[in-house]
Amino acid sequence: MSTSGLDRFSINQMTVKQLSLPELVTACGDLGVRNVGLWREPVQAHGPKATAKLVRDAGLTVTTLCRGGFLTAIDPRERAEALADNRRAVDEAATLGTDTLVLVSGGLPAGSKDLHGARERIADALGELGPYAERHGVRLAIEPLHPMFASDRCVVSTLAQALDLAERFPAHQVGVTVDTYHVWWDDTAPAQIARAGRGGRIHTFQLADWTTPLPEGVLTGRGQIGDGVIDMRAWQGYVEDAGYSGPIEVELFNDGLWARDGREVLAETAARFTEHTR
Amino acid sequence: MSTSGLDRFSINQMTVKQLSLPELVTACGDLGVRNVGLWREPVQAHGPKATAKLVRDAGLTVTTLCRGGFLTAIDPRERAEALADNRRAVDEAATLGTDTLVLVSGGLPAGSKDLHGARERIADALGELGPYAERHGVRLAIEPLHPMFASDRCVVSTLAQALDLAERFPAHQVGVTVDTYHVWWDDTAPAQIARAGRGGRIHTFQLADWTTPLPEGVLTGRGQIGDGVIDMRAWQGYVEDAGYSGPIEVELFNDGLWARDGREVLAETAARFTEHTR
Repeated sequence: MSTSGLDRFSINQMTVKQLSLPELVTACGDLGVRNVGLWREPVQAHGPKATAKLVRDAGLTVTTLCRGGFLTAIDPRERAEALADNRRAVDEAATLGTDTLVLVSGGLPAGSKDLHGARERIADALGELGPYAERHGVRLAIEPLHPMFASDRCVVSTLAQALDLAERFPAHQVGVTVDTYHVWWDDTAPAQIARAGRGGRIHTFQLADWTTPLPEGVLTGRGQIGDGVIDMRAWQGYVEDAGYSGPIEVELFNDGLWARDGREVLAETAARFTEHTR
Repeated sequence: MSTSGLDRFSINQMTVKQLSLPELVTACGDLGVRNVGLWREPVQAHGPKATAKLVRDAGLTVTTLCRGGFLTAIDPRERAEALADNRRAVDEAATLGTDTLVLVSGGLPAGSKDLHGARERIADALGELGPYAERHGVRLAIEPLHPMFASDRCVVSTLAQALDLAERFPAHQVGVTVDTYHVWWDDTAPAQIARAGRGGRIHTFQLADWTTPLPEGVLTGRGQIGDGVIDMRAWQGYVEDAGYSGPIEVELFNDGLWARDGREVLAETAARFTEHTR
């Protein structure tokens, strides 16, 4: 099968989580998909070194590892555990040969109403993790999550907030993840993408579409490319105008897609990518 | 029962929609609640003039009418119908004796991915409705809705966007609604509240708390005051520092509250208001 149109396409593993790592690697080979974004849990289950060999032998590039983060705890023991876990995530990213670890920053600790304080604790943690990541050739990519996740998953809700954090550190240590699903509603996001580009801080670019109604808990409602309201070419244009020319990952959490045959979903996702990007 | 602490409290009718208008008015009298925010559908069912007499005779003040808006249609006939319906909403507000009509601007028309265009159509509509409202002594209050509603309910997602629209018109025609539920996550909102205050554009202030998990469809997940993560006193401080001294409405859409006895919910809501505001 031709790879034309898929050179920059990366399939995020979560989109087809029904596939085992070996199944995913085989399916990518069959479909001409050359890049994958991986998740820590399946990588740990398969073993980081074994995973690295599996993807390398298949000629696949690992574009990102998802995910580190959850850096908002107040309790000292919890904070120490989170930092240790993030160092392990950096180690795993280095083993896999990807230079980008995506960070989901974490929500409010139980009982807290202090968003500002939570964001400052993330900055403190980045001050420790950034140099560690640099020594391992890994960049941290803060992912602003849609504001509907602000309390329970990620207190960093906008690219502006993510850049306010990232810019306290060198760009080769800390940048941002631009994911259409999280920023599409924000009329200030294009200017923030330009800001990120000027600073060399667009560390990865991900696509998912916005569809409604949102499911209970809202986590698994990320729509297949083209099924929703997001103009993918426009957002691709914003990041490319900002100087980004790297891989474009499609990352979908969607119960409907997970219920289907994983190879079929991968083929559909690759086709939608070709149709809706340039 | 003492009214101490409740002088500024307004119960938005939707919070206790299980109560009929006469039941609501009686319950307010029994509990010392002096202000109500009403919704068009129950008002129309009871009759606007009859409703006005009912609340006036009970000594209640109508703080807002919810809601006009839905001004994003492209189709000329749909646009004309929306404008006519909003003129009727202005008439109803005037009949009820409230000076504030809350606007939920509307989502993307089917098949459209153009947020900017939708926002511009809202501006066009406000240019027609603002002078009409002024002639009837009514102010339009654009309510930015949480970004999770951007596609299907309201393309105006932030106070900054709402003010960018409102400031094209005189403040006595168009201002904004500040609702904690929709803006709590936004670190730029306090500065935007100050901007709104400087312009005399805080036309109403509403409270609801943010609780998770969000229910399917996310519309009916607004939490009782004190049950969630929002620091109500902090937000009250922002609007008061910006010069707002008007009523404070509690507006909850919550299946759990709707399943309970309405008088009990009203009493609880008043108690929570006293506990969590200053």
